[in-house]
Amino acid sequence: MANKHGHGRERIQFANTEDKQEFSKYPTKAGRRSLSRSISQSSTDSYSSAASYTDSSDDETSPRDKAQVNTQGSSDFCVKNIKQAEFGRREIEIAEQDMSALISLRKRAQGEKPLAGAKIVGCTHITAQTAVLIETLIALGAQCRWTACNIYSTQNEVAAALAETGVPVFAWKGESEDDFWWCIDRCVNTEGWQANMILDDGGDLTHWVYKKYPSVFKKVRGIVEESVTGVHRLYQLSKAGKLCVPAMNVNDSVTKQKFDNLYCCRESILDGLKRTTDIMFGGKQVVVCGYGEVGKGCCTALKALGAIVCITEIDPICALQGCMDGFRVVKLSEVIRQMDVVITCTGNKNVVTREQLDRMKNGCIVCNMGHSNTEIDVASLRSPELTWERVRSQVDHIIWPDGKRVVLLAEGRLLNLSCSTVPTFVLSITATTQALALIELFNAPEGRYKQDVYLLPKKMDEYVASLHLPNFDAHLTELSDEQAKYMGLNKNGPFKPNYYRY
Amino acid sequence: MANKHGHGRERIQFANTEDKQEFSKYPTKAGRRSLSRSISQSSTDSYSSAASYTDSSDDETSPRDKAQVNTQGSSDFCVKNIKQAEFGRREIEIAEQDMSALISLRKRAQGEKPLAGAKIVGCTHITAQTAVLIETLIALGAQCRWTACNIYSTQNEVAAALAETGVPVFAWKGESEDDFWWCIDRCVNTEGWQANMILDDGGDLTHWVYKKYPSVFKKVRGIVEESVTGVHRLYQLSKAGKLCVPAMNVNDSVTKQKFDNLYCCRESILDGLKRTTDIMFGGKQVVVCGYGEVGKGCCTALKALGAIVCITEIDPICALQGCMDGFRVVKLSEVIRQMDVVITCTGNKNVVTREQLDRMKNGCIVCNMGHSNTEIDVASLRSPELTWERVRSQVDHIIWPDGKRVVLLAEGRLLNLSCSTVPTFVLSITATTQALALIELFNAPEGRYKQDVYLLPKKMDEYVASLHLPNFDAHLTELSDEQAKYMGLNKNGPFKPNYYRY
Amino acid sequence: MANKHGHGRERIQFANTEDKQEFSKYPTKAGRRSLSRSISQSSTDSYSSAASYTDSSDDETSPRDKAQVNTQGSSDFCVKNIKQAEFGRREIEIAEQDMSALISLRKRAQGEKPLAGAKIVGCTHITAQTAVLIETLIALGAQCRWTACNIYSTQNEVAAALAETGVPVFAWKGESEDDFWWCIDRCVNTEGWQANMILDDGGDLTHWVYKKYPSVFKKVRGIVEESVTGVHRLYQLSKAGKLCVPAMNVNDSVTKQKFDNLYCCRESILDGLKRTTDIMFGGKQVVVCGYGEVGKGCCTALKALGAIVCITEIDPICALQGCMDGFRVVKLSEVIRQMDVVITCTGNKNVVTREQLDRMKNGCIVCNMGHSNTEIDVASLRSPELTWERVRSQVDHIIWPDGKRVVLLAEGRLLNLSCSTVPTFVLSITATTQALALIELFNAPEGRYKQDVYLLPKKMDEYVASLHLPNFDAHLTELSDEQAKYMGLNKNGPFKPNYYRY
Amino acid sequence: MANKHGHGRERIQFANTEDKQEFSKYPTKAGRRSLSRSISQSSTDSYSSAASYTDSSDDETSPRDKAQVNTQGSSDFCVKNIKQAEFGRREIEIAEQDMSALISLRKRAQGEKPLAGAKIVGCTHITAQTAVLIETLIALGAQCRWTACNIYSTQNEVAAALAETGVPVFAWKGESEDDFWWCIDRCVNTEGWQANMILDDGGDLTHWVYKKYPSVFKKVRGIVEESVTGVHRLYQLSKAGKLCVPAMNVNDSVTKQKFDNLYCCRESILDGLKRTTDIMFGGKQVVVCGYGEVGKGCCTALKALGAIVCITEIDPICALQGCMDGFRVVKLSEVIRQMDVVITCTGNKNVVTREQLDRMKNGCIVCNMGHSNTEIDVASLRSPELTWERVRSQVDHIIWPDGKRVVLLAEGRLLNLSCSTVPTFVLSITATTQALALIELFNAPEGRYKQDVYLLPKKMDEYVASLHLPNFDAHLTELSDEQAKYMGLNKNGPFKPNYYRY
Repeated sequence: MANKHGHGRERIQFANTEDKQEFSKYPTKAGRRSLSRSISQSSTDSYSSAASYTDSSDDETSPRDKAQVNTQGSSDFCVKNIKQAEFGRREIEIAEQDMSALISLRKRAQGEKPLAGAKIVGCTHITAQTAVLIETLIALGAQCRWTACNIYSTQNEVAAALAETGVPVFAWKGESEDDFWWCIDRCVNTEGWQANMILDDGGDLTHWVYKKYPSVFKKVRGIVEESVTGVHRLYQLSKAGKLCVPAMNVNDSVTKQKFDNLYCCRESILDGLKRTTDIMFGGKQVVVCGYGEVGKGCCTALKALGAIVCITEIDPICALQGCMDGFRVVKLSEVIRQMDVVITCTGNKNVVTREQLDRMKNGCIVCNMGHSNTEIDVASLRSPELTWERVRSQVDHIIWPDGKRVVLLAEGRLLNLSCSTVPTFVLSITATTQALALIELFNAPEGRYKQDVYLLPKKMDEYVASLHLPNFDAHLTELSDEQAKYMGLNKNGPFKPNYYRY
Repeated sequence: MANKHGHGRERIQFANTEDKQEFSKYPTKAGRRSLSRSISQSSTDSYSSAASYTDSSDDETSPRDKAQVNTQGSSDFCVKNIKQAEFGRREIEIAEQDMSALISLRKRAQGEKPLAGAKIVGCTHITAQTAVLIETLIALGAQCRWTACNIYSTQNEVAAALAETGVPVFAWKGESEDDFWWCIDRCVNTEGWQANMILDDGGDLTHWVYKKYPSVFKKVRGIVEESVTGVHRLYQLSKAGKLCVPAMNVNDSVTKQKFDNLYCCRESILDGLKRTTDIMFGGKQVVVCGYGEVGKGCCTALKALGAIVCITEIDPICALQGCMDGFRVVKLSEVIRQMDVVITCTGNKNVVTREQLDRMKNGCIVCNMGHSNTEIDVASLRSPELTWERVRSQVDHIIWPDGKRVVLLAEGRLLNLSCSTVPTFVLSITATTQALALIELFNAPEGRYKQDVYLLPKKMDEYVASLHLPNFDAHLTELSDEQAKYMGLNKNGPFKPNYYRY
Repeated sequence: MANKHGHGRERIQFANTEDKQEFSKYPTKAGRRSLSRSISQSSTDSYSSAASYTDSSDDETSPRDKAQVNTQGSSDFCVKNIKQAEFGRREIEIAEQDMSALISLRKRAQGEKPLAGAKIVGCTHITAQTAVLIETLIALGAQCRWTACNIYSTQNEVAAALAETGVPVFAWKGESEDDFWWCIDRCVNTEGWQANMILDDGGDLTHWVYKKYPSVFKKVRGIVEESVTGVHRLYQLSKAGKLCVPAMNVNDSVTKQKFDNLYCCRESILDGLKRTTDIMFGGKQVVVCGYGEVGKGCCTALKALGAIVCITEIDPICALQGCMDGFRVVKLSEVIRQMDVVITCTGNKNVVTREQLDRMKNGCIVCNMGHSNTEIDVASLRSPELTWERVRSQVDHIIWPDGKRVVLLAEGRLLNLSCSTVPTFVLSITATTQALALIELFNAPEGRYKQDVYLLPKKMDEYVASLHLPNFDAHLTELSDEQAKYMGLNKNGPFKPNYYRY
Repeated sequence: MANKHGHGRERIQFANTEDKQEFSKYPTKAGRRSLSRSISQSSTDSYSSAASYTDSSDDETSPRDKAQVNTQGSSDFCVKNIKQAEFGRREIEIAEQDMSALISLRKRAQGEKPLAGAKIVGCTHITAQTAVLIETLIALGAQCRWTACNIYSTQNEVAAALAETGVPVFAWKGESEDDFWWCIDRCVNTEGWQANMILDDGGDLTHWVYKKYPSVFKKVRGIVEESVTGVHRLYQLSKAGKLCVPAMNVNDSVTKQKFDNLYCCRESILDGLKRTTDIMFGGKQVVVCGYGEVGKGCCTALKALGAIVCITEIDPICALQGCMDGFRVVKLSEVIRQMDVVITCTGNKNVVTREQLDRMKNGCIVCNMGHSNTEIDVASLRSPELTWERVRSQVDHIIWPDGKRVVLLAEGRLLNLSCSTVPTFVLSITATTQALALIELFNAPEGRYKQDVYLLPKKMDEYVASLHLPNFDAHLTELSDEQAKYMGLNKNGPFKPNYYRY
């Protein structure tokens, strides 16, 4: 249902079953799986493109065992190799070019320093884009300590560049689980510095603070959380009456949702299919399972390139939209024999069953754009009568006894995380939303936010959007006084009621 | 902002200023204007296509002065000419072909008669499509009395057909204001019959009952209201603590909204422009003011036919959507000189000003798809230095002293109501929503609905959609038990949270 | 196969069978039918929109019996009513606004008068657009005499306006066949004036001159012919060695072809369907028979508006294009049961058979965009077991014994001629092409053109296009000397080899 | 202007100036450059994706110095490593899946062996797809000897697989120029076998035979040539009266042209941009220089993904098409400052000048989809004040003194050859066309073809298309006898006149 760009999707598990108790009430669909599998599958896939920038150092020494000092003499960090800082700096500079919203935020808020006094501890993917966020927060007055939310996604040279400029960062690509928690601990537990804001992606940092340093919450003004999983955990805490600070759910802000789902999938479905299979789209018969935002994005792009697309749906409203948008609404079983490509976008499980895989025609491509790795019943394909042949990275041919081949992409995991890249612009939307949420929570007058989970105020969502308009050289119209009055609106927004559907 | 298919848009005014007091707190944008103007402008336009079916009888006698009896001997009705019944019946039969949702509702609910005991008084446009609705309500067990919500929109032969089958209907095309209230009164105030349900479109019927027969509300189980204006009145009553029965706002249900705005405008913008101007779309430079659902529909259609479209927006989120959808976001003044067509879809006033009209190029077409007749400052064009030349029905050339002509459509009123038609399918969505709302309110257990305004439950909205899927030969997928459990959903819906944006 | 905007499509027949002999060798597909039928069907349809401007005078006197004089004292014309001149002048002025190519041609060639000395006799539809052409020819130095190529298409007030300014025009709406030939004769056969150029649309004028005044050809420098039929006749003459002057086939120039077929049909298919049936396009299942230029235009527009379109083809190359463009290629019989709309664009006969009509579902719409009226086997529907019901102008319901209705548009004749309008811009392309062809033939040095049929030189085709670019504010790039040399091109064109496919 | 998938685009030069004399009269645009540059630029780029399959053997020994024997004991071949045959076989098998047209050709022609007796010497790229062609020719009865037309494009393991099955193949990746001619010579000059058919791609083989073994032409029944360059050479020979056998120009057949240009570019422009820059298409301002087939393909794809596209054109007809298709037609200089992406598709030189590069905005992406490497004036960027920074393979940042970066892709060479892949389906069209041309020439009765250059007969072009329809499950309609007669067509085609534009 929701296709996020990999932040917090496939999570590290808590080793300790007691911990699980507290957080595990959220539905299975949040993507929980056994640790070993999670580690082996998620991160390398998701960040293949980032990896292309990263030199694969052969240095086998654990960063924890190295003594490293940056040029300013500080050793309050732990990264793979501080010497990669210069290369990392270039990566950050390139990212800055496509994240002008953050740069303009730096400029606009420069005088007032709205985060002066903020001590932010952060746990996110550590990439060039995150670095632009962190350096923006610092430019706005904050002090930051940072760690990685994923053991594989860290761009080592970016971590080095951050460390070099004095950010205490604790992260490297290929951490062990023990390393992972050690890094988080080093972020939180430092002498003479206590966080008063938390920026989390997945909830692991929040969990750690809850478990080990609950007293920290006395000073914390708020948590900003961006992942589905982390947000779910927060709602659970809130329901259980255990949330002791305000939290901001930035996952569900309109702008982020549209970019993470509709637009991002419209951009990436073609890319993911092309890079893996060199498919020609023209005239291909494609069925897209699920016509939510993700499905809509996929269908739009595929139809535009000449594919003949039909859809499946369980929800009659979405089905009716599909009809009006020009897609036949079918049951998968009716059409499965004719399809050249099958794409799942449902968020559900076993949407493509073994029985349907058996009926596909030779050469049919199957992939998942929806959620986790449950949508295609890949497990059913690991049976003795079928032969698996890896023909490229992320591409397996499953061969039936009669010679029929089905082309399975990314072993049923998310295609766009595994086989395509996320535009920096999408990451910019997310990062800007995070920065504004931090500013809002940090500066909110006493009492505006209770110990609950909040959505970003619509006006700030609108502000995030407005910061990205210059990228398109887009010029907003302003309401005249008379018009504002006629519409009953404030000239500066918000411009829509909360239930507006966009 | 919202483009409804003419129901309750341009309202009859209350003659009595006291009445006005009570209802007039809603913002001006609800389209309130002086009576004379309302009558002269709204209705003939809106129903031009319906009118094409209607024979224009030269009979000048007022229906109120005629003694008419149907073949069953009843005279409890007042229509133009009962003899037109046969022709009207054919119109109804043709409409039935495209309203299979209602027909299937008749079939599904036939045994149980969910409206047995319901006494519905209705005030809507009286067209073939409404007749299908009324006869469906009757088939479901209801008794109905009906009147028109608009003095010009009645299809006389349809009213005759209804009267002939025994429906007490009081309406004709070209009522005076006095007739209008007389008809409403005849519907409500009848011996030996008291309404227990109200179906209203615009709030005039509701108002009349409030004013004249407040005791009726003791028996009324609910009001179903479909217009923006009527809904607004209800919310006002509710706020004022004066709403004494539950009311259902069917205007804002998802399915109806999408069809009234996005899809209906996508269909009608081309039609409206073509019928009036024979314009060739290819290569035309078009600016669409406002990128809400109406604007999105217009932009999609125009771009698809080869126009070069840019947009204006006040809301940065909608503007960002416009960017991603491939439209330049501009200020109107920047581009006004180059445009071939200017279309307003904002719901605001004076979006196109005289100063901008002065700068348009020769031959520029200007029209309004948004709301009411305020978006283009037409009044400013009625000045002595400009010459108006009517070149076709609904098409005026405004001629500047230097010979420049601007082509104004429908005098700035809604283009698609004035110059194109509304597909029966769209009306079917609305009628089905109304029928289900009546069933829901009539059958709801005591206490489910208080004296407040409600949205149609999502499940019923989904049901409306599902009833329309067979038109497209669309086949819904059903969740397996396992999948429903995994998703935490009931297999029969609702399938989405209330805040889902579609 | 080819969809022209009605010029010379449905022809007057030669009464004289001997004449037939000479011209009738061209294939049946040229649309030849018996006179009575031709008259009753073709012209009123084709010019319904023009007709909307024309006041339907009740004056029953034949123009041939009237004595009319224009304000200059001339009576060398024969029109319905010279007093309508003023109204016709306004029509011409409005048309001029969209025919700026001709206006700019007037300006560019004003000094040199390239048609000085030309005496042009013309036989075309007489509409406001033709008037702009005629007055352009005169502005370029020509003398003109004009008559109508179709007995129903004349806009009387335009003919009056031309007569008023001194053009000897002989035409009115509703001529008899005898009138038709009389008018042609009056054009050609006048004392003291002998034509040296012929502009024909359909070949009737050319035929008359061949038959009655063969000596005229001694002075004629060339014939310009625009219709499929007329061009075919010329090729027949040429093959038979009987063509005694050069002729220019302007029907097949690239620009005209694309506008007459691809673009014009893209624009008009939606309009034709909407005006007749108020159909909602979204989700409709449509089969388009034939994927030539006309089919491509229809498919593009329908798909863009949300219809689900499949095609039939006999030519594997066009079929492959259809596949790549995203349309399923099917046999009509495979899909006929599911279709909501069936559109023929083949130029062939009996593409939709009675057997297929029998299998259509209730409410299926059938229409023809291709050619003539042969594509749908309408004759087979005129059988006793079927009931025809005319529900609107141009819309018949054919009712099967079981109650099934098929909606037949324009009785199987061309939908866009019957039920929609042709943009002036398309007519401007044609008129400009004709003007340039006349200039070329009139000014060509001795020997450039033999007694044969020629296509417009590509350079002039390019010139026609360039004259229309200002309408779009389009700015051409010019080759530098270096670039022209590199490409082996003249900087002024032609830019493409003759076989280039565009 | 024409975008071919790399066959014969960037040619090896003749070292010998005398040779040049004979062939060099074709315009510079055919892509002639000095040898060193040609070698360094063309081939590795073009086949990067093929290369991804190829193991990069570290074996430095020249294949010419190795003694290799296949398992059948033959040593009549020269490849990199015969042991790679098995891996190559799998590649061929995978290619066969998407080349079902050739497979069906094998089946249809199996009985008759239409190439029995044919001795074909071939010089093409040696890839899995070519192997499917070669093995098809053999299945149809031919004997084949093969060499590579490009020193870098050979897939070594495919060459090995061919050699293993007994095809005398002489080619490896990374030949020197001397190797190149040696390989050609080994193909042609072999004892006891003399070619009677030539299949060439670029004209080098033909040239060699002309120069070294002119007597071979006594037995040769024909040459089939597919490249622009090679075809040009043949026309030169023909004009000079030196062509001594019939030659078939398969480059210009309709099907191949559409797939090489319109469809292939529609597919590859997005891929090429995404793989190199991870660009988000939505809202990007793009100018496409040239609106021929290549430009049309690029514009269609980019617009469909939400880019805002304008075009430049020199040809008013193409410009007018651009207008009607919804693109603003501009001069590059007018818009250069606003553009996010500049794409050249002209076939011309210096379409993007240094002056324009100077005016681009920071981050502007510049690339070439058109032809050769002349379109962007890359040479002008190699000046001291500008810094080049290679940020990825095929991606350079050119940095101006003020810090502005322009992103240059593939150093101005063809983007889709360098940075994306060509779908096997497109190659299948080409290969099938070649096979049919060989069959036609080999079996043509004496006298059908003279010593001239011919286009593939339309009927065979249609046959190529028909062989590819099953891939789309497309079903052709057949003409009835009556219809064929009506249309004046043979039921089996050809269906269109030669000048038909598709």
